[in-house]
Amino acid sequence: MSITPEAEEFIRRGIPLLGDPLLPSPIERVGAEYAPEMTDLKEDDRVILSPLLSEHERRKELNDPPLSYEIAGARKKIFFDPRSTRAAIVTCGGLCPGLNDVVRRLVLTLSYSYGVQEIFGIRYGYQGLVEGSGDLPFMLNPKEIETISNEGGTYLGSSRGNQDPVDMVDFLQRRKIQILFTIGGDGTQRGALAISREAQKRGYVLSVVGIPKTIDNDISLVERTFGFDTAVSLAANVLRGAHVEAEAERNGVMLVKIMGRQSGFLATQASIASGDVNFLLIPEIPFELEGPNGFLQALKARLERRGHALVVVAEGCAETLMSQNSDDWAKDASGNLIYDDVGLFLKTKLGSLMKQVEIPAKIRYIDPSYFVRSLPAVPSDSIFCQQLANYAVHAAMSGRTDLIVATCNGVPCHIPLEAATLGRRRVDPEGPLWRSALETTGQPARMIND
Amino acid sequence: MSITPEAEEFIRRGIPLLGDPLLPSPIERVGAEYAPEMTDLKEDDRVILSPLLSEHERRKELNDPPLSYEIAGARKKIFFDPRSTRAAIVTCGGLCPGLNDVVRRLVLTLSYSYGVQEIFGIRYGYQGLVEGSGDLPFMLNPKEIETISNEGGTYLGSSRGNQDPVDMVDFLQRRKIQILFTIGGDGTQRGALAISREAQKRGYVLSVVGIPKTIDNDISLVERTFGFDTAVSLAANVLRGAHVEAEAERNGVMLVKIMGRQSGFLATQASIASGDVNFLLIPEIPFELEGPNGFLQALKARLERRGHALVVVAEGCAETLMSQNSDDWAKDASGNLIYDDVGLFLKTKLGSLMKQVEIPAKIRYIDPSYFVRSLPAVPSDSIFCQQLANYAVHAAMSGRTDLIVATCNGVPCHIPLEAATLGRRRVDPEGPLWRSALETTGQPARMIND
Amino acid sequence: MSITPEAEEFIRRGIPLLGDPLLPSPIERVGAEYAPEMTDLKEDDRVILSPLLSEHERRKELNDPPLSYEIAGARKKIFFDPRSTRAAIVTCGGLCPGLNDVVRRLVLTLSYSYGVQEIFGIRYGYQGLVEGSGDLPFMLNPKEIETISNEGGTYLGSSRGNQDPVDMVDFLQRRKIQILFTIGGDGTQRGALAISREAQKRGYVLSVVGIPKTIDNDISLVERTFGFDTAVSLAANVLRGAHVEAEAERNGVMLVKIMGRQSGFLATQASIASGDVNFLLIPEIPFELEGPNGFLQALKARLERRGHALVVVAEGCAETLMSQNSDDWAKDASGNLIYDDVGLFLKTKLGSLMKQVEIPAKIRYIDPSYFVRSLPAVPSDSIFCQQLANYAVHAAMSGRTDLIVATCNGVPCHIPLEAATLGRRRVDPEGPLWRSALETTGQPARMIND
Amino acid sequence: MSITPEAEEFIRRGIPLLGDPLLPSPIERVGAEYAPEMTDLKEDDRVILSPLLSEHERRKELNDPPLSYEIAGARKKIFFDPRSTRAAIVTCGGLCPGLNDVVRRLVLTLSYSYGVQEIFGIRYGYQGLVEGSGDLPFMLNPKEIETISNEGGTYLGSSRGNQDPVDMVDFLQRRKIQILFTIGGDGTQRGALAISREAQKRGYVLSVVGIPKTIDNDISLVERTFGFDTAVSLAANVLRGAHVEAEAERNGVMLVKIMGRQSGFLATQASIASGDVNFLLIPEIPFELEGPNGFLQALKARLERRGHALVVVAEGCAETLMSQNSDDWAKDASGNLIYDDVGLFLKTKLGSLMKQVEIPAKIRYIDPSYFVRSLPAVPSDSIFCQQLANYAVHAAMSGRTDLIVATCNGVPCHIPLEAATLGRRRVDPEGPLWRSALETTGQPARMIND
Repeated sequence: MSITPEAEEFIRRGIPLLGDPLLPSPIERVGAEYAPEMTDLKEDDRVILSPLLSEHERRKELNDPPLSYEIAGARKKIFFDPRSTRAAIVTCGGLCPGLNDVVRRLVLTLSYSYGVQEIFGIRYGYQGLVEGSGDLPFMLNPKEIETISNEGGTYLGSSRGNQDPVDMVDFLQRRKIQILFTIGGDGTQRGALAISREAQKRGYVLSVVGIPKTIDNDISLVERTFGFDTAVSLAANVLRGAHVEAEAERNGVMLVKIMGRQSGFLATQASIASGDVNFLLIPEIPFELEGPNGFLQALKARLERRGHALVVVAEGCAETLMSQNSDDWAKDASGNLIYDDVGLFLKTKLGSLMKQVEIPAKIRYIDPSYFVRSLPAVPSDSIFCQQLANYAVHAAMSGRTDLIVATCNGVPCHIPLEAATLGRRRVDPEGPLWRSALETTGQPARMIND
Repeated sequence: MSITPEAEEFIRRGIPLLGDPLLPSPIERVGAEYAPEMTDLKEDDRVILSPLLSEHERRKELNDPPLSYEIAGARKKIFFDPRSTRAAIVTCGGLCPGLNDVVRRLVLTLSYSYGVQEIFGIRYGYQGLVEGSGDLPFMLNPKEIETISNEGGTYLGSSRGNQDPVDMVDFLQRRKIQILFTIGGDGTQRGALAISREAQKRGYVLSVVGIPKTIDNDISLVERTFGFDTAVSLAANVLRGAHVEAEAERNGVMLVKIMGRQSGFLATQASIASGDVNFLLIPEIPFELEGPNGFLQALKARLERRGHALVVVAEGCAETLMSQNSDDWAKDASGNLIYDDVGLFLKTKLGSLMKQVEIPAKIRYIDPSYFVRSLPAVPSDSIFCQQLANYAVHAAMSGRTDLIVATCNGVPCHIPLEAATLGRRRVDPEGPLWRSALETTGQPARMIND
Repeated sequence: MSITPEAEEFIRRGIPLLGDPLLPSPIERVGAEYAPEMTDLKEDDRVILSPLLSEHERRKELNDPPLSYEIAGARKKIFFDPRSTRAAIVTCGGLCPGLNDVVRRLVLTLSYSYGVQEIFGIRYGYQGLVEGSGDLPFMLNPKEIETISNEGGTYLGSSRGNQDPVDMVDFLQRRKIQILFTIGGDGTQRGALAISREAQKRGYVLSVVGIPKTIDNDISLVERTFGFDTAVSLAANVLRGAHVEAEAERNGVMLVKIMGRQSGFLATQASIASGDVNFLLIPEIPFELEGPNGFLQALKARLERRGHALVVVAEGCAETLMSQNSDDWAKDASGNLIYDDVGLFLKTKLGSLMKQVEIPAKIRYIDPSYFVRSLPAVPSDSIFCQQLANYAVHAAMSGRTDLIVATCNGVPCHIPLEAATLGRRRVDPEGPLWRSALETTGQPARMIND
Repeated sequence: MSITPEAEEFIRRGIPLLGDPLLPSPIERVGAEYAPEMTDLKEDDRVILSPLLSEHERRKELNDPPLSYEIAGARKKIFFDPRSTRAAIVTCGGLCPGLNDVVRRLVLTLSYSYGVQEIFGIRYGYQGLVEGSGDLPFMLNPKEIETISNEGGTYLGSSRGNQDPVDMVDFLQRRKIQILFTIGGDGTQRGALAISREAQKRGYVLSVVGIPKTIDNDISLVERTFGFDTAVSLAANVLRGAHVEAEAERNGVMLVKIMGRQSGFLATQASIASGDVNFLLIPEIPFELEGPNGFLQALKARLERRGHALVVVAEGCAETLMSQNSDDWAKDASGNLIYDDVGLFLKTKLGSLMKQVEIPAKIRYIDPSYFVRSLPAVPSDSIFCQQLANYAVHAAMSGRTDLIVATCNGVPCHIPLEAATLGRRRVDPEGPLWRSALETTGQPARMIND
């Protein structure tokens, strides 16, 4: 993962503190519940971004200290007084397995570990942070939310898009909410930053702590996002069935579309997990449909050799294909696109091309769409969600703001909000993940006619 | 289930025997393996079709004996000599969970219980019963097929459509195959009948035994088909996720299409199992989209009341909707339908209608399609598959032909092929299944403007 | 299933009515919600117990009318006024998948279909029907219980054992509860009968309707109990893993204990579903450990032939084994049994016997115990639970009492409580289920030295 | 993870090479299949063990270069000629989910990516590497093993214990096997080292590459072992059911034993994932049963407060408990321990102690034992297995030996065999994992009377 100079600048600036944390943490004081040595954390340690020796030596030569993040975790002193502090939680954007695990653990840790008594659940994303939007926030009670992680979705509701930060800070200020947890993707975290800046402008003490969420696992600097293992698992299950369908017929071709507008992480991991995928098309890897090196010829060769094929296309390949085949997208009488679905397009396109080359292949299409993201989290995700939520609470209670919680080299850490919202991760065409994909599928490394 | 006079006639005729079963069954002779009392079956008992007292009394008044089927199971005497008999197995039509359980158990019972030594697996459905079609049959060996039921799909491959019975009997005769197991839907079983008649015409001794297969559970006279529990389970899981998606947004509307061209059994059972479906549209129940009693008004009322909705539409509703809204189906420049997918149609249609009534509802669509049928069978189906396969082997070895194996009032029985291929079962609009669906969904019983 | 004269007598007496049902059912009146034709049920039809032609002819000769049950379902007229009637629900005995589906649907149907407004949830089984037991009943509200079926267990809590009917009727009478749904096994249903008789004695109008529950599927006259498919599924999954363990080692022997104190239905169905079990020991089938035809010799032969074995033992085999090997059960210094676990006993016993015959077999043991019953119901069970609950509500509202709801030949019906509590179903050593088990395991039909 | 000086010494020595890799890798030459840029790996980069800034600065002050591992991955030059090289694969020790994924990918990568044509599968662990042990190795063919990862267990069989390295090298030498992949825990890897040393002594060119395997995730220096996510998932599922059982009764206490002889990683992660565990006992954390701060008092308090409890005990707590309560373990007449099962012991012990304090608690026990390790790998594990297998093949083909493949800070790397077999990882009582466990369970941090 290469770091831009802009991101490096933000990372070096570090995490702002709303004020000196002067209160002893209740985590230390609980006595029987938590032994003193449990918080014997080297609070001021940091985790270095790149563990590569080459990077270490490059910086050493330049006399440049290594780039690092603050470590996440409970602090001995906290800033907010739990008895009088109000917190709020908001979930934004599309669903992702584990949302309810995060919400649940935020509430339990705020409540049981720190003693925070008023926790607001904001309804339907940032919409619910605007007065008069119709849905009032409700109080989140540890007992009531005990079992919400058994269900997928979000207990709070969600929505897309940002609202005016002025309205949102008005809303928070009116209710004396001083901690806001924002669970969402990079758009959401940019909104979180805007809220924090508006509060600062007013001199309103507000901690904004983000928990990064994306089904595509493509948030910049974030090595792992929650819910991804679950989505891979569900998608791999769909691929298992699709493989069986392809094999059942002579020249059976199954086409499966997997979520991922900008990046192909989900499609790639699910394909590797399945082990049965023969062609994987993702937005990071350019390909052509036609010509001697094009995908069609490769598919034809595969059918002649093995008699069936399973093709996975990531949602975001639409752009690649539309630019190459703009005339072929179905249009209505007025020239408007009837569908912008890369799966349906590819199905039609493949069907007619197969006819040209006289292979009697039956192209069938599965679009699991939302199915890969709406079920409960698998245990590995559930554990990760709980850890992130714990770290988010510790960060907020210590008086930190403008950060997201994440891991770096497996170590929990705080990443400055500004740094994390600068662009996205994409599958590296020269990295080990894509190489594994090529090994698993056996597809040509380049499907381009030069 | 009402029986037509034609079907009654076929049922009364009974199951033909290829000749007198004169050989003692090895099942009796195995000694240590099977104690004598195990086969102490009243072979000549029968099971009455209708267990209703009203039907009993109606027939009693008419002096009409009750309509009944022969009971399935091992017979003391068999017709085919296991040492010299060759059997073949063919799977036809679309996939269905449990196909491999049936194939596996046919092979194990033929081989281990009877000692049949040559069992052919026919490739890709009836296509593989035609000389020169490209795929030769292969021998099925008990060890090799031990674990095939861990996978979905069909180990043998499948195809749709029938071939010329003359060619198929040529193929069987050339290989001296005297028992043919046909696993497939009503089209397949009509093909099976044609094969049997062609063999009879030639005086070629051939037993044809069908195992009814349909993901839609709609074969006439057959109260339960294998794989259906599994399909319901998979579909219900998709609905669980869809419900979560609908609830996550204000005015969230999820539309899910479920397989079922002629009948809505799968959509209905999955909806009842889910418990979260608000509208269920199936081909058996007429409905209108527009007008004061139409589906749209009901959906609008639901959104106003509850703020989200989950709509399930069975594949076969296309006809209902096309006849009413023929102008709205997307056509290309030449006037051809661009898609004939009831889900995509309904999605578009609902979207524009919701706009008219000014409800800002987001219609999102999931089409799990083949996913509900391509995974391995759940245990209850797996057990059922094995029982059907056992009964099929017993029937064939005893010299019976032109039958399918099924259950009637839970009792395994033989149903004459002619009777079973006469039409399909459909969801009874006045029966308890549809009533349960109405109770579960809470949708209006009639969405029609009179 | 053979019917004792005593049971026949109870069945012929039929279901008592608390009084004439004079009120029109709201199900008819809802109008838009339920079209009139939906309740056009032939209310007075009945279902015949045996669908066998032989039984039909036997009775015909004796001039004996067929034995039949009343059909279950909604009636046009009801007895209880929904506006003023209070109902209560109690769950008793061990857990069973689907309990929450039953409770949920009872509440939804009472509330939404009939308009009953006060529904009590009784805590911890019959204990909660005794004043001063510590746990008060709570009101069941349709919204609150919407999602309880996503979890296993019982929302109400449970306990074993019966209480004094005098106390329980006191409790019901004090709260003016006139309908009681008892979800439990035969002990529970005998308790239900005692409650009903006590109420009758006092002239207190009380409808008692049972929903039969048993993980063992062994309630007399009841062809299918809810939760069984789920338990089979969970047990089969454990067997899948056990088979893999057995195969992984040379002479690997895995022993798995499956619930079932009196009957081996669960062990048998799970073994058939698994397809990998080599020996199945259930209480219905006598066997000996030692001697030339004993289980040990058979196991030894299997190991010599195949190198591994999977053995399933039903809990209830303890008796068989203790009577034969009374000296071998581990006892402490005072001569008390240290464990009464047939699995641990068999493990020890097999280990030492294998040593005698010098087979270096490693006996390993899995006891999934409660695991097979505590997870949520699979969809086929969930549907069945909902149907039973609907029928139970219809029966109670119509003024019927002293019955359980069940199916007979797949038709929903009312079975008199007295008849259903007379003994248990057991696996028939000469029936098709045990035959399937023998075919699947390949074990000797008799493991007894005569 | 602290590194001992001994381990540091081995790490600094690096990975031995059998000779100069002079052959061009076929991965580069495949052309259409693998574009040149795909192998543009900085082969000589390394990954630093500790990413903590404090460690970086400590070493900087000491002028000590950072401790690092060689990066894993394909090399441009290889040592073994694929056309003439024979490889062998052996799986040792207890089962672990993903074993078949590793075996499958080893074969596919050796065969398809490098063109190795002779790959031996060794039967039943190191036993199968001894001439005359009874089970001959068989050739592994890519087609035959395509679907083995759909099943749990090991396709090759396994056994415990090491054999004489002299015999094993005899075996390998006789068959001209020059690459050996050893999949197993630290005992297995010590055996691997012995084999390698014996070969070196003879001057026989042999590459030994280990893939670390342990269900307990406790191999020294290895941050993640394959199969662990799956085991956590299966164990969490058992805990879900156990929680439901505990809640169903008044004073219900469920006790669940989870694998883990030396370490409590599995018990801990499963407990965190479940979220329902109230007490977690692992070997790393000392505790006492009795006394005012003992576990019993804490359990009693919990029951009084909440009425039910779920207790998880890791297998390895037996030692803790036996030393404290040596008189209470059940013994037979001769004074031998009848069982050494910590679960059964604790069940009995708790039962009698609860009686003393007059809480009518019912202690029930689930021992899922082997069930948590014998099912197929979840997708996240399956992907990880495939990556490890790829790295292992690349390492061996390049002529490296005496290493295991693993990840360090998420980067694939080679760890010297000597370093990896020096001790085990244990749950850090002061680290974040145990803190999460305390937060999730709410149990007292210390259950010890000082």
